[in-house]
Amino acid sequence: MVVDMSVQMEIVCVGNELLIGKTLNTNAQWLAKRATSLGIAVKRITVVGDDVEEIANALREAIQRKPRFIITTGGLGPTFDDKTLEGIANALNRKLELNNKALQMIKEKYEVYVKAGRIGSAELTPHRVKMAKLPEGAEPLPNFVGTAPGVQIKVGNTDIIALPGVPSEMEAIFDSSVAGMLKKEAGNIMFFEANLYADNIVESTLAPLIDIAMHDNPYVYIKSHPRGEEKKPHIEIHLSTTAKDSKTAKDRLGKVMIQLSELIKEKGGKVKTFKSL
Amino acid sequence: MVVDMSVQMEIVCVGNELLIGKTLNTNAQWLAKRATSLGIAVKRITVVGDDVEEIANALREAIQRKPRFIITTGGLGPTFDDKTLEGIANALNRKLELNNKALQMIKEKYEVYVKAGRIGSAELTPHRVKMAKLPEGAEPLPNFVGTAPGVQIKVGNTDIIALPGVPSEMEAIFDSSVAGMLKKEAGNIMFFEANLYADNIVESTLAPLIDIAMHDNPYVYIKSHPRGEEKKPHIEIHLSTTAKDSKTAKDRLGKVMIQLSELIKEKGGKVKTFKSL
Repeated sequence: MVVDMSVQMEIVCVGNELLIGKTLNTNAQWLAKRATSLGIAVKRITVVGDDVEEIANALREAIQRKPRFIITTGGLGPTFDDKTLEGIANALNRKLELNNKALQMIKEKYEVYVKAGRIGSAELTPHRVKMAKLPEGAEPLPNFVGTAPGVQIKVGNTDIIALPGVPSEMEAIFDSSVAGMLKKEAGNIMFFEANLYADNIVESTLAPLIDIAMHDNPYVYIKSHPRGEEKKPHIEIHLSTTAKDSKTAKDRLGKVMIQLSELIKEKGGKVKTFKSL
Repeated sequence: MVVDMSVQMEIVCVGNELLIGKTLNTNAQWLAKRATSLGIAVKRITVVGDDVEEIANALREAIQRKPRFIITTGGLGPTFDDKTLEGIANALNRKLELNNKALQMIKEKYEVYVKAGRIGSAELTPHRVKMAKLPEGAEPLPNFVGTAPGVQIKVGNTDIIALPGVPSEMEAIFDSSVAGMLKKEAGNIMFFEANLYADNIVESTLAPLIDIAMHDNPYVYIKSHPRGEEKKPHIEIHLSTTAKDSKTAKDRLGKVMIQLSELIKEKGGKVKTFKSL
């Protein structure tokens, strides 16, 4: 897919709301974008429901593919259908055990809520303690926005990282505890992209031009996305490359943009450059 | 997950743009919502890149789980990285062969484009013919919006249906050729849902109340979604059920809404009903 990114990641999103189409999976996009920008190749995204066996199967399958990271979203909260940790434990043949560090994090949260007058009691009810029952050998990751901690578990050379489904919590734990880990593994590889827009040309006429440009520029990946309506064709052309420095990347992308623009114009198309990251 | 929906479906979305977070997977949500509303249980959504082996693996795995339907999105177009049909053929150990019905559909499209002055020639170039190379035994599904036909392939008791990635084309083929198939299989089972909103209560306090309501109402699934910011908790409570008629469903959902509202108020929470479908 993308030339140089060798550190692989999978994303497993848990939640019936995703399978009934109630919720748009913005978490998967956010994570995929952030991981890619950190130099990680996201190889697969899997969505399953709030079912221990379904979660365990998805995890088992992902682990067998040996990505460096598996990030899960959702299913860490206090309700009966928050089943991600049970699913992970099941996949790993480990037990869930009370993690004192996680329990302390949760306890402190509820004490803050009591002080703020949001709840009457910080009592550690069974539903609250549930969030501190982690697979054996797991480490909690602090959640500065909500209550349920994130969870990190090492299995062979894979780190499984379980994040909450609430976007603000998921993002906060990713930023504080996960992004650094990913960056460290990815090293100094960076992902660069740019867009061209072509009008007055249909995708099947553009296709052989992309073949030429990709052949001449093996380090740039070119993908066309038809965007317009049928009567007014409009194609977004996405160029991407990975490199250790932005000059190399910009030179590569610039060269392709010039070549492809010329080819499109020869076929009667119009070209607009939009933005370059 | 949902009580009565026994006809199962999986969705496999193909596209690097989804794995780099460039594109939000609105296709998966649209399909999941439509399938659910037709009485079909979506069990899994898988996203893979534009890679024959990755696509074939995802298809092979999905087929082994024996859902009644597998719908794929993306990768049917004329460019080098439109690889879904090759991936499906690979998974099924079938060859790609020129399908004359598909070729005719494509030919007619380009003739229309020529008449409309959009392209100079309707010549069936290799990139255009590529869209008519389907796995052996496949049937093309007409695409009234774009060029690449959808594709239907039967494998045992599973129908694989490949749809384009452009949302307007995907939706049009679904509506004209797929929705009826799904409805026929699902029979007269329908999915119903309603929302409650609770303020002034945290999720861990709500959790045991949901347990009570679910215990007393085994045909209703209740799921809480924290929506507010930390300082202003706001929880959306989603109730769903499946039934053969709307009266049964509304009675069930209404009963739970009353019971749950009472329980929440007893704990000092505030309740708002929002909408009921």
